[in-house]
Amino acid sequence: MHAEIISIGDELLIGQTVNTNASWLGSTLGLIGIPVKWGVTIADGRIEILETIENAFKRSDLILVTGGLGPTKDDITKQVLCEFFDTELVMNEEALERITSYFTARGREMLEVNRQQAALPASCTVIQNHHGTACGMWFEKEGKVLISLPGVPYEMKGMMQDSILDLIQEKFNVKSVYHKTILTTGIGESYLADQMKDWENRIRANGFGLAYLPSPGIVKLRISSDRGEQDALEIDRFLAEVEQSLPKHVFGYENDNLSDVVGRLLLSKKHTVGTVESCTGGGIGNYFISIPGSSAYFQGGFVTYSNALKMKLAGVSEQTLRNFGAVSEETVIEMALGGQKNLEVDYCISVSGIAGPDGGSNEKPVGTVWIAVAHPDGILAKKFNFGDNRERTLQMTIFAAMNLLRCTILKIVDEKK
Amino acid sequence: MHAEIISIGDELLIGQTVNTNASWLGSTLGLIGIPVKWGVTIADGRIEILETIENAFKRSDLILVTGGLGPTKDDITKQVLCEFFDTELVMNEEALERITSYFTARGREMLEVNRQQAALPASCTVIQNHHGTACGMWFEKEGKVLISLPGVPYEMKGMMQDSILDLIQEKFNVKSVYHKTILTTGIGESYLADQMKDWENRIRANGFGLAYLPSPGIVKLRISSDRGEQDALEIDRFLAEVEQSLPKHVFGYENDNLSDVVGRLLLSKKHTVGTVESCTGGGIGNYFISIPGSSAYFQGGFVTYSNALKMKLAGVSEQTLRNFGAVSEETVIEMALGGQKNLEVDYCISVSGIAGPDGGSNEKPVGTVWIAVAHPDGILAKKFNFGDNRERTLQMTIFAAMNLLRCTILKIVDEKK
Repeated sequence: MHAEIISIGDELLIGQTVNTNASWLGSTLGLIGIPVKWGVTIADGRIEILETIENAFKRSDLILVTGGLGPTKDDITKQVLCEFFDTELVMNEEALERITSYFTARGREMLEVNRQQAALPASCTVIQNHHGTACGMWFEKEGKVLISLPGVPYEMKGMMQDSILDLIQEKFNVKSVYHKTILTTGIGESYLADQMKDWENRIRANGFGLAYLPSPGIVKLRISSDRGEQDALEIDRFLAEVEQSLPKHVFGYENDNLSDVVGRLLLSKKHTVGTVESCTGGGIGNYFISIPGSSAYFQGGFVTYSNALKMKLAGVSEQTLRNFGAVSEETVIEMALGGQKNLEVDYCISVSGIAGPDGGSNEKPVGTVWIAVAHPDGILAKKFNFGDNRERTLQMTIFAAMNLLRCTILKIVDEKK
Repeated sequence: MHAEIISIGDELLIGQTVNTNASWLGSTLGLIGIPVKWGVTIADGRIEILETIENAFKRSDLILVTGGLGPTKDDITKQVLCEFFDTELVMNEEALERITSYFTARGREMLEVNRQQAALPASCTVIQNHHGTACGMWFEKEGKVLISLPGVPYEMKGMMQDSILDLIQEKFNVKSVYHKTILTTGIGESYLADQMKDWENRIRANGFGLAYLPSPGIVKLRISSDRGEQDALEIDRFLAEVEQSLPKHVFGYENDNLSDVVGRLLLSKKHTVGTVESCTGGGIGNYFISIPGSSAYFQGGFVTYSNALKMKLAGVSEQTLRNFGAVSEETVIEMALGGQKNLEVDYCISVSGIAGPDGGSNEKPVGTVWIAVAHPDGILAKKFNFGDNRERTLQMTIFAAMNLLRCTILKIVDEKK
């Protein structure tokens, strides 16, 4: 039993949009034990869609189609599906009601093209979309299933998680693969692999699968067993070894979010936090508030992009800036202490760095970032270098600052002052 | 004449790696006027590779295959290509010499598996790789071309740019497709399509292609002509009509970035900007600083997530918060004015909203956001509702705030105070 993913959209073929839907679906189906064997990307063309669906039905059991369901004229997937499955569009009352209230709630006028999104193939099972207007469609033919979903990533993902994953598991009665993932930050994939070499060999010798899943700033390690849940305890023991070896890097499991992990630590001690950000311009604060309920600990911060505001808001002295520069241990320490005092918080993170592409020197190359954390008993600061890609440096700075705060709260830092 | 891209690699199907090669090839081929009509992703399996190449030869003129050329056992592309083209591997002396010096230069031992990378199909034209060890292969069959390239992105891109793009243009003597994209924000895809209905009909009647490319907060409209550059002026005229009809929504063309567009407006008048953010927690500042050189206009800001900091930093009065609440016109106005004064900036954006999932009421449902812009001649404020998805609301707030600033600078807002 395997799946095929069909991505419809000219923007994917001409490279205007990177196909992240296909990779998300690949990993998500993998987690419920369904391998994806084919991925096909095509434009919104009748011939291409028909040929691709025909091929897919010949070779795959489950076919997931994303895209081409918008209200505009270039979106023709629904019509072509009617042709393939020899059916016709009928108005779906539940969908119409849902779309109507979607527009009412937003105070926006509902147009005829939006109303037409509720017209759906008679022979499919309609899957309501609680994240947007285009419905999902579930077709069956000769024991095989084709599911058509909108291409907007958060709508597609939401619908998969709301109900479709469950329906797929039920329909195909897939034997479950047991997975557990441990999350690390601040350590590269190859360095991590080298550190855990012997451990990895033992895991594989025990018949488990191991995958390194790297993304900027975070590497996930996933152990899997196709013997299912019965191996859960053994996998937990293996993962506990990673946590014990790398406490400064392991911040959580499964879908834990570093910002949430830190938030829960602060909450448990009823401590508050604030930020004084230079190079990230507010990105750390924005990461804090990505967690609902963060107002219980995150109070706010200063964005001190200019030196004038570093002095005025956080009380950094002109002399410090002159003698050591804005990207220095001395400056981030004054920023964090000033923030802790003026924002009236228990913990204060400060960052100052050279994101590039300009502004680097031999002594402080592009990618140099200083991070400080003021805490109830003192302060610490640490220097990083994240390389010459601006976007990546800013992203890595946010994770590194959050992890330094985590380690400070847990008192597992070595850099003390 | 069109191209097909075949991406080989298990890591793409299971979602471990996002297929950026395919999108890069799509846009790069598009720029020399070759449309990509099919994209297929498969694992390193003999059957899958054979079936995919066969299908591709039936329907496409140019086939680009990436991946599966590594020295390890799971990489079988070269062998399968020999089978398909009925040829056999022979040692390529130039490749062998190049690979040998590659290892010598890096002081690394050359293994037999590496030596075997110089064994290449007899019937292909070998394309040397000056960025790594795996060679490229150019096959021709019945006037069609298949090019096999390594999957490592910088090797593949380097080889395309070194010689392959030129060879393709020479071989196919291609006429170029002309594209131009206009960028809008703050207007939904369907509302936009409705507004531009007659315009769209005229475009299509003139033989142009039109695509709507929506992403959260931004909808792109792309016109294309397969008659090439000669239609550039006519397309510009069509796009100018959109700009004239929707000046509050059109913020740029092609790869313009809203933050960059606003930055250039501020720069041109030597004006500065600051932010007072509640619900976005620093996201607007972070969007400003995503642009290199933004320190010329973006000074910094206050993140006033708590009411206490709204009062202390931005000078919002306790009475205003008590009488109207934190999410109100009165509060965002005081925030923006306080920020403008205390941050000493010409323009100050303020936002306060209910991102959810909790905190909504009948009067102010989740998704309600107030945005104000203090400018040199006064202040304006506007209310939005972005629905009940927290992440989306935060993202939309950032774009809406930036666009309200843009409209304020250009003096094209109606909500005045």
